Amino acid sequence: MSTAVSAERLRQQLDRISAELHGSVLPFWLEHSPDREFGGYFNNLDRDGKVWDTRKHVWLQARQVWMMAALYNATKEERYLEAATGGAEFLRRHALEPGNRAYFCLTREGEPVSMQRKIFSECFYVMAMAEYARATGSAEIRAEARDVFGSVLRFKDDPSLVGRTVFEGAAKESSLAVPMILLNLVDVLHDSGEKTHANVERWCVETIAMHAGADPRFVLEHVAPNGSPMDTPEGRLVNPGHAIEAGWFLMDYAHRTGDAKLERLGVDIVDRSFDFGWDEEFDGLFYFLDREGYSPSQLEWNMKLWWPHCEAMIGFLMAYRATGSERHFDRFVQVADYCFENFADPEHGEWFGYLDRYGTATHRFKGGPYKGCFHVPRALWRCETLLREALGA
Amino acid sequence: MSTAVSAERLRQQLDRISAELHGSVLPFWLEHSPDREFGGYFNNLDRDGKVWDTRKHVWLQARQVWMMAALYNATKEERYLEAATGGAEFLRRHALEPGNRAYFCLTREGEPVSMQRKIFSECFYVMAMAEYARATGSAEIRAEARDVFGSVLRFKDDPSLVGRTVFEGAAKESSLAVPMILLNLVDVLHDSGEKTHANVERWCVETIAMHAGADPRFVLEHVAPNGSPMDTPEGRLVNPGHAIEAGWFLMDYAHRTGDAKLERLGVDIVDRSFDFGWDEEFDGLFYFLDREGYSPSQLEWNMKLWWPHCEAMIGFLMAYRATGSERHFDRFVQVADYCFENFADPEHGEWFGYLDRYGTATHRFKGGPYKGCFHVPRALWRCETLLREALGA
Repeated sequence: MSTAVSAERLRQQLDRISAELHGSVLPFWLEHSPDREFGGYFNNLDRDGKVWDTRKHVWLQARQVWMMAALYNATKEERYLEAATGGAEFLRRHALEPGNRAYFCLTREGEPVSMQRKIFSECFYVMAMAEYARATGSAEIRAEARDVFGSVLRFKDDPSLVGRTVFEGAAKESSLAVPMILLNLVDVLHDSGEKTHANVERWCVETIAMHAGADPRFVLEHVAPNGSPMDTPEGRLVNPGHAIEAGWFLMDYAHRTGDAKLERLGVDIVDRSFDFGWDEEFDGLFYFLDREGYSPSQLEWNMKLWWPHCEAMIGFLMAYRATGSERHFDRFVQVADYCFENFADPEHGEWFGYLDRYGTATHRFKGGPYKGCFHVPRALWRCETLLREALGA
Repeated sequence: MSTAVSAERLRQQLDRISAELHGSVLPFWLEHSPDREFGGYFNNLDRDGKVWDTRKHVWLQARQVWMMAALYNATKEERYLEAATGGAEFLRRHALEPGNRAYFCLTREGEPVSMQRKIFSECFYVMAMAEYARATGSAEIRAEARDVFGSVLRFKDDPSLVGRTVFEGAAKESSLAVPMILLNLVDVLHDSGEKTHANVERWCVETIAMHAGADPRFVLEHVAPNGSPMDTPEGRLVNPGHAIEAGWFLMDYAHRTGDAKLERLGVDIVDRSFDFGWDEEFDGLFYFLDREGYSPSQLEWNMKLWWPHCEAMIGFLMAYRATGSERHFDRFVQVADYCFENFADPEHGEWFGYLDRYGTATHRFKGGPYKGCFHVPRALWRCETLLREALGA
């Protein structure tokens, strides 16, 4: 397919992606994040890697375990396995309470600090352990991942299990986040050798397609259970980066299962979400938009966050893989240029996470409660792989 | 005291404050917010007053009842009593569940949508009913306010009563928000004729003083239970607008009780919080700061919100009342100028709520889940009263 773009252009992009991943991003985390005394990672790191908060956020601990294990599985370099082990053992000791609820935040030593009324800590725990089990070959850890995944499926269907009361005035709605993260888990579990869950896969794919089917101009974050748009602020909400991520999860899954029609839906989701979400005036992807043009109530709606741009880099290279169209490659370059100009930090490594609408960094830290060793290395690593494949290397 | 400022300057400020309150702000809410079908108020209003979400947020419903009842108590104008009644009866029917937990959000019709694991909905309910009882003379409603206040005091001491688990790794800390809001409630209850709660008052005053005592350069939002500063992101957090509000609550209370030393502490809190929180480069008060200069993890830390500026207007006029110093009056004018230039909306009335660091409005709505008929009218009304008193009128 990928013939429209010259090998020289592909090579140029591959070179800067690889240099950034191996020369700036991974060294930052490998040097500054491991806690060699208590295990786990310091995930709250200032611009230069200094720890500004010793607490450990489970989302990020787990995602870093996944990232390190995935790099080990791809390269067999021992240093990645070692880094994965430090985090995995810390999480296995401290992250779960009986019944498989996972904490949101732990102290440096591993004592629980807080728990959300959501299922995402548990999801990232599964993602970590499935990939780590593949790295170690441990049947015990694979069984743990499968067990927690079973709990996640129960939690998803009964919010009271995560402590949430559903009051009678609350709108019944479908949220894009849930099928999206579950489809990603299905993929990680599949790679680790677990039998795929056909009914779960089908539900994820159909639910994402339902969100995309409500309006051809964008993907809605929340729709009614029957898929129709809702005229509430949640119903009008568009999160372009999130939709783009869902788009590449779909393409990834469709590519693996050989479903060309589903892959095209993934391409379309990425295209329309980018068209709707890109700020024509100051560049970059908006964080949130209201489909009718009202002001989203989120105070940060017009900020430019690192992760939607990471997702868009992967999204457009996967779209290029699917279509071979230079337009998709050009968009990848457009997003990558924005990232290298605005998020990258050649002085200290890794990327800044938060810019104002105009592209000025508002926060100097590289790691915080919601930003860790995940989106940037995942995007660079997936892009490196896709570019190598496109080059036939 | 107030002799340093010319009557002409005082009169100038009084004129623009009164014109804004009676010509722009109150008409906006009186025209657009009452829900004449189901009671209560539409608190989610677009720039021009159009309803963009019909749900009703209890914080704002209750604060608007307080505001309308307070205006009635000050003026005896029937339209304010009528507006207060529409909200008060809606809240009495729908806001509480047995045991006096108050919902956070209701549907237009009054069905519960959500509940926070915090005590603020209950606090604002007490504030509303105490002031409304004073307006109507209803002993029944006054008893309700007293009863819910009793529940608030119990909730404050036992987080499990509001559904919060305190995990063993969570830092034990004192939060400025709690003594602050309770001191405000004590004041409202006092005005409505309730006996003051001497031990509660003492605890509020001493706790605020403890937060102010940790460092002479600012007021910390969270300190250790013994008052010492904590080296965590929460322990380093400064919220200048919040501290300024605490400062004028103290001055208000001290003025009423004739405690000159406490009034001076209030003046000092306002002064130092303004000095630390004012953005010398682009003007306006930052929303959050880290006392050591780290980036606060809140994405909106550098935005300029309407309410800290509202509190600062009241704070500096109360400081002027206490000191008679032209410097305090000048600061009042500085903040008011910023507000009239950046937040006011001569076209449609009321104020915008959210600006980016540079002073550009980021959100066009006048009412949202956390902004309603409260901070702007309260500030203008208190300032109008203080300016009239200063003029001896």
